[in-house]
Amino acid sequence: MQRKVFRSGPYAELIAQAVQVGEIIYLSGQVGVDERGSAPDDIVAQTVLAYQNVKVVLAEFGATLDNVVEETVFVTDMAETMSQVQEIFDARASAYGQRPEVAQTLVGVSALVDPAFKIEIKCTAHV
Amino acid sequence: MQRKVFRSGPYAELIAQAVQVGEIIYLSGQVGVDERGSAPDDIVAQTVLAYQNVKVVLAEFGATLDNVVEETVFVTDMAETMSQVQEIFDARASAYGQRPEVAQTLVGVSALVDPAFKIEIKCTAHV
Amino acid sequence: MQRKVFRSGPYAELIAQAVQVGEIIYLSGQVGVDERGSAPDDIVAQTVLAYQNVKVVLAEFGATLDNVVEETVFVTDMAETMSQVQEIFDARASAYGQRPEVAQTLVGVSALVDPAFKIEIKCTAHV
Repeated sequence: MQRKVFRSGPYAELIAQAVQVGEIIYLSGQVGVDERGSAPDDIVAQTVLAYQNVKVVLAEFGATLDNVVEETVFVTDMAETMSQVQEIFDARASAYGQRPEVAQTLVGVSALVDPAFKIEIKCTAHV
Repeated sequence: MQRKVFRSGPYAELIAQAVQVGEIIYLSGQVGVDERGSAPDDIVAQTVLAYQNVKVVLAEFGATLDNVVEETVFVTDMAETMSQVQEIFDARASAYGQRPEVAQTLVGVSALVDPAFKIEIKCTAHV
Repeated sequence: MQRKVFRSGPYAELIAQAVQVGEIIYLSGQVGVDERGSAPDDIVAQTVLAYQNVKVVLAEFGATLDNVVEETVFVTDMAETMSQVQEIFDARASAYGQRPEVAQTLVGVSALVDPAFKIEIKCTAHV
């Protein structure tokens, strides 16, 4: 089946940031880095940036966060995450702009690709 | 694409327990808690409850465990999991009521949302 | 919806190695073991074998790595992974035989099913 592929960033030759087949868009995990690839120390700030990056990827497919149906959220420090869970979900609600109609699974992992990363968000969207 | 959403439990305003688009139902990770939100200490007992919770979510979409096509299972203690793997898979087989025709990926994570949780099951179903 | 199921290996009675529904093939996580179930110590060698095992599973559905649209890669030692990331991605590129048009999420986990396993690759394919 034909696919549409979006590549970007330092790993553009290795992985696609997202692949669309039919009505489904599979996104690679997005992390909380700014345009220069720099990650703030704060997990809430990383969450804001991660959703911005999800939006940027989706826009390449003519989609928005409204198209996201599920997220798997990987965090490196669950205790820190839960201590700021209200702020993290507020950031998420702001990104979605409404009450998200999205399934979510949140798990703690032992590491992300860069030690500076505290959160990575992997989404599936339908258009 | 139009979606059907099921919300429930203490996080109902934040996340959907499942989202259906077309023939696919994406479930949020289900944990081994009873109706009062309490988790038994035993991982086998949590497994039984987690599948019960998957069933409850699926029922909202007119679906059953027969509709599940894949599971990702996250456990916090792989050594404990493997020491009781027979009992865990027996509990799973009992939940499915037959030899499950389901793909599965089982990984150890550093934490789940609550320290009391030992297993979380994330499923995709097709109707 | 009707499904096609492929079972294989020591856990064939417990889990399917993959399930196809419609155009989507959901694969169970594949690890870097040879035909005898033995895992080499080297993560690059495990990566080679893991993709070989993905190929074997896909072949049962008349599919190839060209059909893979997304991967979630679980590794037990991110520092070791990143120290050999070039070799790991070279092995992946060799498996795909071209620049992969595949979304990828790479996370560190606390354990895989066997302590000898360093990498597990979970794929979704479309035919």
